[in-house]
Amino acid sequence: MSGSIYGNIFRISTWGESHGKGIGVVVDGCPAGLYLSEEMIQPYLDRRKPGETKYSTPRKESDTVEILSGTFEGRTTGTPISMIVYNKSQRSKDYSDIASYFRPGHADYTFDKKYGFRDYRGGGRSSGRETIARVAGGAIASLILKTIGIEVNAYTKSIGPVSIDYRKCAKENVSLSPLYMPDLEASAQAEDFLNNTMQNQDSAGGIVECIVSGMPVGIGETVFEKLDANLAKGIMSIGAVKGVEIGAGFQAASMLGSNNNDAFYLQNSQVLKKSNHSGGILGGLSDGSEIILRAAFKPTPSISKTQQTFNVMGENIDINIKGRHDPIIVPRAVVVVESMVSLTLVDMLFANMCTRMDKFTEFYR
Amino acid sequence: MSGSIYGNIFRISTWGESHGKGIGVVVDGCPAGLYLSEEMIQPYLDRRKPGETKYSTPRKESDTVEILSGTFEGRTTGTPISMIVYNKSQRSKDYSDIASYFRPGHADYTFDKKYGFRDYRGGGRSSGRETIARVAGGAIASLILKTIGIEVNAYTKSIGPVSIDYRKCAKENVSLSPLYMPDLEASAQAEDFLNNTMQNQDSAGGIVECIVSGMPVGIGETVFEKLDANLAKGIMSIGAVKGVEIGAGFQAASMLGSNNNDAFYLQNSQVLKKSNHSGGILGGLSDGSEIILRAAFKPTPSISKTQQTFNVMGENIDINIKGRHDPIIVPRAVVVVESMVSLTLVDMLFANMCTRMDKFTEFYR
Amino acid sequence: MSGSIYGNIFRISTWGESHGKGIGVVVDGCPAGLYLSEEMIQPYLDRRKPGETKYSTPRKESDTVEILSGTFEGRTTGTPISMIVYNKSQRSKDYSDIASYFRPGHADYTFDKKYGFRDYRGGGRSSGRETIARVAGGAIASLILKTIGIEVNAYTKSIGPVSIDYRKCAKENVSLSPLYMPDLEASAQAEDFLNNTMQNQDSAGGIVECIVSGMPVGIGETVFEKLDANLAKGIMSIGAVKGVEIGAGFQAASMLGSNNNDAFYLQNSQVLKKSNHSGGILGGLSDGSEIILRAAFKPTPSISKTQQTFNVMGENIDINIKGRHDPIIVPRAVVVVESMVSLTLVDMLFANMCTRMDKFTEFYR
Amino acid sequence: MSGSIYGNIFRISTWGESHGKGIGVVVDGCPAGLYLSEEMIQPYLDRRKPGETKYSTPRKESDTVEILSGTFEGRTTGTPISMIVYNKSQRSKDYSDIASYFRPGHADYTFDKKYGFRDYRGGGRSSGRETIARVAGGAIASLILKTIGIEVNAYTKSIGPVSIDYRKCAKENVSLSPLYMPDLEASAQAEDFLNNTMQNQDSAGGIVECIVSGMPVGIGETVFEKLDANLAKGIMSIGAVKGVEIGAGFQAASMLGSNNNDAFYLQNSQVLKKSNHSGGILGGLSDGSEIILRAAFKPTPSISKTQQTFNVMGENIDINIKGRHDPIIVPRAVVVVESMVSLTLVDMLFANMCTRMDKFTEFYR
Repeated sequence: MSGSIYGNIFRISTWGESHGKGIGVVVDGCPAGLYLSEEMIQPYLDRRKPGETKYSTPRKESDTVEILSGTFEGRTTGTPISMIVYNKSQRSKDYSDIASYFRPGHADYTFDKKYGFRDYRGGGRSSGRETIARVAGGAIASLILKTIGIEVNAYTKSIGPVSIDYRKCAKENVSLSPLYMPDLEASAQAEDFLNNTMQNQDSAGGIVECIVSGMPVGIGETVFEKLDANLAKGIMSIGAVKGVEIGAGFQAASMLGSNNNDAFYLQNSQVLKKSNHSGGILGGLSDGSEIILRAAFKPTPSISKTQQTFNVMGENIDINIKGRHDPIIVPRAVVVVESMVSLTLVDMLFANMCTRMDKFTEFYR
Repeated sequence: MSGSIYGNIFRISTWGESHGKGIGVVVDGCPAGLYLSEEMIQPYLDRRKPGETKYSTPRKESDTVEILSGTFEGRTTGTPISMIVYNKSQRSKDYSDIASYFRPGHADYTFDKKYGFRDYRGGGRSSGRETIARVAGGAIASLILKTIGIEVNAYTKSIGPVSIDYRKCAKENVSLSPLYMPDLEASAQAEDFLNNTMQNQDSAGGIVECIVSGMPVGIGETVFEKLDANLAKGIMSIGAVKGVEIGAGFQAASMLGSNNNDAFYLQNSQVLKKSNHSGGILGGLSDGSEIILRAAFKPTPSISKTQQTFNVMGENIDINIKGRHDPIIVPRAVVVVESMVSLTLVDMLFANMCTRMDKFTEFYR
Repeated sequence: MSGSIYGNIFRISTWGESHGKGIGVVVDGCPAGLYLSEEMIQPYLDRRKPGETKYSTPRKESDTVEILSGTFEGRTTGTPISMIVYNKSQRSKDYSDIASYFRPGHADYTFDKKYGFRDYRGGGRSSGRETIARVAGGAIASLILKTIGIEVNAYTKSIGPVSIDYRKCAKENVSLSPLYMPDLEASAQAEDFLNNTMQNQDSAGGIVECIVSGMPVGIGETVFEKLDANLAKGIMSIGAVKGVEIGAGFQAASMLGSNNNDAFYLQNSQVLKKSNHSGGILGGLSDGSEIILRAAFKPTPSISKTQQTFNVMGENIDINIKGRHDPIIVPRAVVVVESMVSLTLVDMLFANMCTRMDKFTEFYR
Repeated sequence: MSGSIYGNIFRISTWGESHGKGIGVVVDGCPAGLYLSEEMIQPYLDRRKPGETKYSTPRKESDTVEILSGTFEGRTTGTPISMIVYNKSQRSKDYSDIASYFRPGHADYTFDKKYGFRDYRGGGRSSGRETIARVAGGAIASLILKTIGIEVNAYTKSIGPVSIDYRKCAKENVSLSPLYMPDLEASAQAEDFLNNTMQNQDSAGGIVECIVSGMPVGIGETVFEKLDANLAKGIMSIGAVKGVEIGAGFQAASMLGSNNNDAFYLQNSQVLKKSNHSGGILGGLSDGSEIILRAAFKPTPSISKTQQTFNVMGENIDINIKGRHDPIIVPRAVVVVESMVSLTLVDMLFANMCTRMDKFTEFYR
């Protein structure tokens, strides 16, 4: 079944494998009149580009985006926007031996059983390069959000044992850290931890936190299409994510109602909350506070350390995975998390436009 | 926009408010030939029925399900199955004062802003009674799963500070605990904790864990329709859920790749794993191990303790919520979690039937 | 697969069989704030009710609609509206013999082969009673359209050999004709034709034309979600419809471009067309003219005349179908056509609200 | 809203404008294991290529397809197949004047009103070149159908006043006629008619008939997702189509039940019908006979003859459209009709795999 399409009203359709000709996305349902150019999308892609620091795979890719359709004289026309990023640096031979066995923590075995065979070159469709399409599509979503003052910002909250408190950091430090961790002291500690991990031929995981400011109240649909439900799906669909939480998240489970409830109050006719354990979402609808969510990423499954598995001959074997791998996926995943959040928000903002008769009659007056 | 429909191939459409005539669900896409009767569905509903223990609202409801369509001579016909549970015990006057203010932790404010007004009686559509429809639909999904040996079992993993390890409990103890917590000693402790909480006019939260056994390998679709992505959406769409995790979940974020990867091995031609940090899902596809997921529930927002909020007159006020409320939602939510998991699995099992040419040609041979 | 759900943003989910407990529909995605009561829906259902004239089945049904959810204090709340019409007059014994054979022109054989068996009582789910749900849902759509001045009116254009020209009739005559044919002279001729047909134990078909006035320009989405494409699906999904055409329709195939093109002109700053061969739709989008479409209905397949078929024993047999049948479906289908058109238009009007950045930023300003 | 995605389980997402960089399609949901290469798709595209005869636009395009993803070692992998056809022969200056006015019969006016402006170069997204994506996607659908013996064949049934009876022609003559009209005598007459039409600076329309053989019984879903309903949508979504009919179609409206019903009979245990007025579809499900449908195409709206319209200055003006246009769209549309039929059939064949418990348990045994 179709699995590479995301969204209902604002939809992206993605394609491409690690070692195919490229990675691409078709954005269908983008409204007409958005100023758009490749220059506006490229910075988002640059943030997930490999080879930027020693904590990402040394595979060199420029990952330059090209817009193939959907714009005219610098603006979107309301028709599908097709974007492509060509693969440049596929070294297929690096991956030739993994055709014969099933890497632990990877999708090799499940793909093989599902489809009968697999494109084993660099993980094929289950490669992290697939996220290029999410980021290119997410960039457009982000540009749409900015027109109404919504900002989506993610950062590295933890790497291995090193964790930070965003409230105590200068937001702009994010770009100063090679790990997108705005507490620069902690970032340095995390670097030490990663250097050590790499020396041990091992890999690490971490947590990305995403904060959305400027949300109107009431976005999300009730029951199954709740805002948090859709955010959870979007985030969990990113490879390597094993957990998602909103606001107080798993901590809420051990709180009391009197602590967890966010008291409302009015100040200068504005509705405010004394805390934000809800993470900006009540009853599946945005409540006007910042949306706060966290995604837990498992360690990169590709490690050089010896591992046990079985091969296509039906033998139990020991393997050492070679090739160019990220010791940690988290820093490059920061922009991917932002992308999935932005794509989800735009879709739900449009859905919300269709929920009131007074707005409907005003629109068609 | 439409928010009360769930699924793609196997779909449920739900309706009903706390104080309306009833709660219902239409199951569309149920295959023909499933043995089905009201007696087979009722036990699922009985598990979420209020008034069973002192830890749930004393509102008395029989919550008896009636099948209105879709079966013939004891079997499903392939056409929509409409089910209804009539509301019996609506005491609207209990809720009359909440029309005037916005309860913290509830959807009152967000509904009002979204729709311009709200059905304030008992929470209207955002009431927990909405989950009746999920459970009735989920019961059918569960019956479908059983035909191929898939079992979905959830239980209360934690309540407030009391947490248990399922691996050390006898599974059948679940039904012996009024809290659906199979470690009976811990269950008693949790009861003490809840009694104390209730005396303090407060409420508690907790964690539900769900375990799926008997899954074939390869279920789930790649990229956006991953099995875990859809499970996350289904679970997060349950009111009061603030977090979802699969397998090692948030703990995976602080593990090393060498610990987190589950080593594969062959035993008597069977593919096994030495651990199950993946929670039964690799690359978004089931890997043949047990699926393990956890949902974090916040404390019930309705508490009798004094709280701060504002009212429709634009005044900051103190409130004490009266009425019949659950001091904790978790035990009654256990079957709701099972239901969302079952609904999601059935939908994805059908999706998986359409992914291979050899299966297609065999089907139409 | 799910087949009983219609629409994307404004969705209906229908259920029910001819001889089950009732027929129902859940309308999901209806905006909040629409004034709605059973009295506003009933007149639509009364127009398709059986037993009103001698040209419809004498089965007596009051077909009274009951609203079960989704309204509060006389207005819709934005949550699902569940409606039910109970079956009163099921005489199962009338249908007992049709269990043993496959009626020509009916879905008996195809249902049996698809599902392995069928609910043979009165056609089960493929009975014309299924359209009750379309009409109840369509009534709500119609009420929504009226708030912005859109009127959807259908009538009987032809019955057997008798055909009329709507432009030459008084519109209000529709309700004076038992056949919903506004040319009363032709209507009387059609009655004669039908009387004759009934005496011959035969049945007749006809054409329904539907005219939509008050449409804004630009409704419909490009490429696959064109307005005419969705109208064609909605209309063709009505049982017994074998053809759909828009504007000049099949006649356009034999016209020249110079005749078929509708010349534009401006009059008092209004864009007008000198003709309307387009039927109000250009490039899949409404052009501001009246939308004109026609649906061809085949004769009722149930006839008393002797017919050839085979039975479940594998024998070729002659049959005479007994029971209460419409000699023609067309007059009762008029409101069903209107319903499908209204449902489609509302869905596309909402879709159109999400297609321009300027509208988006204005909405969220 | 998203309008360029078609299908539910087997989905295509299309993009591209007449004068952009190219036209493309992403096929999502294609099963793994289909043998596929560019050489297998190209013949389908060649049949709609312009410049092949004097009855199509002299614009010269090779329209060569390139596969960018989704295959590995000559077979599909179950992941999205992205295909692109680059535009080579855009002569933008030809179209520069049409920016200032609204062509009758075209989507200029409706696009402009919907989106606020339009890509006026060659019709932008509403250009007939959009159908390249349908044909490339349809080719894959067609290859899937062939694996189970389903053949989809369309031909030109009428052009202007010249109409043929397919039953009296040799099927293989289709490819001998420059107009895809298998009655070669009639084809010659139609050529005369077209030559005359072209001399008069005018254009013509016609009818395409499509015949599907080898269909299993029971394909299609009941109520709204009927096979004929989806075929009608697919066909009507093709630009210039104004009518669709199945089997006896509009003629059925004037038949009697006793004539229109197709008598069933058994011959050597095979279920056969004495006629095929149903066009192979009963109750929305395939009945095992040939599926027969017809699409009515209006004349090409671009004609050199003087026409009346208005311009962006708000003036009523006379225009003569210059540039390279097809005097008739029908012959090139034959393969487009086949494509939409094939895409629809594949999607519904997959849907049908999910409708019976016995098939489900067999699949997962």
